[in-house]
Amino acid sequence: MQAYFDNSATTKPCPEAIKAVENALTECWGNPSSLHYSGLEADTLLEKARQSIASKLSCESGEIFFTSGGTESNNLALFGTAYSLKRYGKRIVATSVEHPSIDEALNRLSEEGFEIIRLSVDKTGKINPADLIAAVTPDTILVTMMYVNNEVGSIMPVELAKRAVTASGAHAYVHVDAVQAFGKLNVNPLRMGADLVTVSSHKIHGPKGAGALYIKKGTRLKPRTLGGEQEMKVRPGTQPVPAIAGFGAAADALPDIKEELSVITELRDYMLSEFEKIGGIELNSPRDALPYVTNISVTGIKSEPMLNFLSSKGICVSAGSACSKGKKSRVLTEMGLDRDRMESPLRISFSRYTTKEEIDYLVEMINLGKQQIRAIK
Amino acid sequence: MQAYFDNSATTKPCPEAIKAVENALTECWGNPSSLHYSGLEADTLLEKARQSIASKLSCESGEIFFTSGGTESNNLALFGTAYSLKRYGKRIVATSVEHPSIDEALNRLSEEGFEIIRLSVDKTGKINPADLIAAVTPDTILVTMMYVNNEVGSIMPVELAKRAVTASGAHAYVHVDAVQAFGKLNVNPLRMGADLVTVSSHKIHGPKGAGALYIKKGTRLKPRTLGGEQEMKVRPGTQPVPAIAGFGAAADALPDIKEELSVITELRDYMLSEFEKIGGIELNSPRDALPYVTNISVTGIKSEPMLNFLSSKGICVSAGSACSKGKKSRVLTEMGLDRDRMESPLRISFSRYTTKEEIDYLVEMINLGKQQIRAIK
Repeated sequence: MQAYFDNSATTKPCPEAIKAVENALTECWGNPSSLHYSGLEADTLLEKARQSIASKLSCESGEIFFTSGGTESNNLALFGTAYSLKRYGKRIVATSVEHPSIDEALNRLSEEGFEIIRLSVDKTGKINPADLIAAVTPDTILVTMMYVNNEVGSIMPVELAKRAVTASGAHAYVHVDAVQAFGKLNVNPLRMGADLVTVSSHKIHGPKGAGALYIKKGTRLKPRTLGGEQEMKVRPGTQPVPAIAGFGAAADALPDIKEELSVITELRDYMLSEFEKIGGIELNSPRDALPYVTNISVTGIKSEPMLNFLSSKGICVSAGSACSKGKKSRVLTEMGLDRDRMESPLRISFSRYTTKEEIDYLVEMINLGKQQIRAIK
Repeated sequence: MQAYFDNSATTKPCPEAIKAVENALTECWGNPSSLHYSGLEADTLLEKARQSIASKLSCESGEIFFTSGGTESNNLALFGTAYSLKRYGKRIVATSVEHPSIDEALNRLSEEGFEIIRLSVDKTGKINPADLIAAVTPDTILVTMMYVNNEVGSIMPVELAKRAVTASGAHAYVHVDAVQAFGKLNVNPLRMGADLVTVSSHKIHGPKGAGALYIKKGTRLKPRTLGGEQEMKVRPGTQPVPAIAGFGAAADALPDIKEELSVITELRDYMLSEFEKIGGIELNSPRDALPYVTNISVTGIKSEPMLNFLSSKGICVSAGSACSKGKKSRVLTEMGLDRDRMESPLRISFSRYTTKEEIDYLVEMINLGKQQIRAIK
């Protein structure tokens, strides 16, 4: 049996996305910038996908800019804002548990003279609202925050960012990295007060190689990539039409968020109750985490041998982010986990394809792994 | 009938590429950075594609870094070099007829204080070797040059760049934008003395959304995108495995370059002889252009009505680069074309799928267009 529990790393492309990619490769393979019919056909696919993403974000399609993925969207949002607003200040407020594509970009900006404030998280994996309010000073130009933490599933108070900006009088933009939230929670930039929002295709059952940055109308962003006229010159380069068409189709195929959330919550609660039965499992995720992501530690068993054991049984889980393999988890450290638990995290991430049978198999194999890996030691 | 003559803008994905994309979407859709079997399968696809590209460039697979496409590769090469070598100098030598992804990046670098030298081309669309030698001074840090011009097909003396660098004693890298040459001419970075070479998938019958930058071992490049560990941190972000797998398959499926060149030359010569028969066609491409790209002007008929007429007949040609639509062609200006010819260029670009029947149809329809568009006036 195979069981896939690494949906925070990537998801299985849905049939709708695969079909859209195939169509873009076989029927509408023109260059969307070309002026002849073949170009127009490809451009039509592109604009259809833009509408699909815009509709899920309750925004205008002209506010959606396609990129190669979440990392590029995050980089564009950060460097684009920093360079475009630097005359208003050099202060950027973030959390200490951002994705590497934010964190490393912030390091580069720090080298370039920007002042980076990283807010710590508490034992529930969330920042303290008062810290955020205090951190946003009048010379702040950007507040960037992930909506859902990719390792433990904690949900950040993103809507507070705009309030903090308004209260401080800063000329600052708000960027939300919604990669782990899109399709799972309602992501409404206007309602959450975000000027910039990152979303990614391959986390919502679309193909890898496409992402988008929502850029609120009127937001000034200095492009990071230079070239042709594509994406209003905000992101030049021939668009990856197959991946974008797949992204759009995957967005269209997303289930009702509320209904799906209740199904996933039930599955997660079932898994936790099964873990309780076998014992020796500690929950690292906060109780109010997004139920798609559950971080646990198996007492006394390091992540790597357990991952390998599970993989040998056809089960995919991870120790943390696929983008920061090998590093000690910052979010778990700040949540105050003791050393043993720090060395044994497993991230179990669900998708709408996750089944009860997979969970039963996972629990059974973790239990078997506990015995067999101990036996080897 | 349909006839596609815009292969310099994009090419039809070959069956091998489509199959590889499908496999990556349905079978090997894991995250290549994940440590479980699903990740390893995807990583295996990635490394296979890297081998395929490396083999076509006669280099090591560790010298191939995947990007989202030609524009990103060009940006990475330019900004990466400029920022990494700026302590040696601020001078960058290019030609005046580069792709917008080079030209606009150079404009940005110029704003940032770099000195940009753009070498003009003569009436054959090529730079003067003596100009190149003179332009490369000891404080030059980069020479960047396209191998084949995307509008007229002129072949640049790229191998002279390294000689100019060596002669000057400059601590400079050589970057070759080989997007229009890859698969059509032998692109051997080592032999041509290039430290950096850009290639793109969708110009060789692979999917859009993947490109690569060859980075010669030992070359120091400051990454432009920041994030995870992917592509040795030179280009972080989850790789677009489907597009990359398709890129690799398309590279594997490339025909023998010499044999194909002789077929294409014959087709091009046939087309030119047919144009001579109908008359009123002026050749803008130099006689020694790469035969895949032929730029002509139809006497007295502007590009746009002719493009539209041909498109209505199922024929795709372009007026110039898809990445710079609407702008007056710099290469044609520098080649000294008179105003009438400047307003009526058509770029006819071949691929290995181009047939004699398509050419017959094109010639017939251009002839018909001449009469009908004149009649309308």
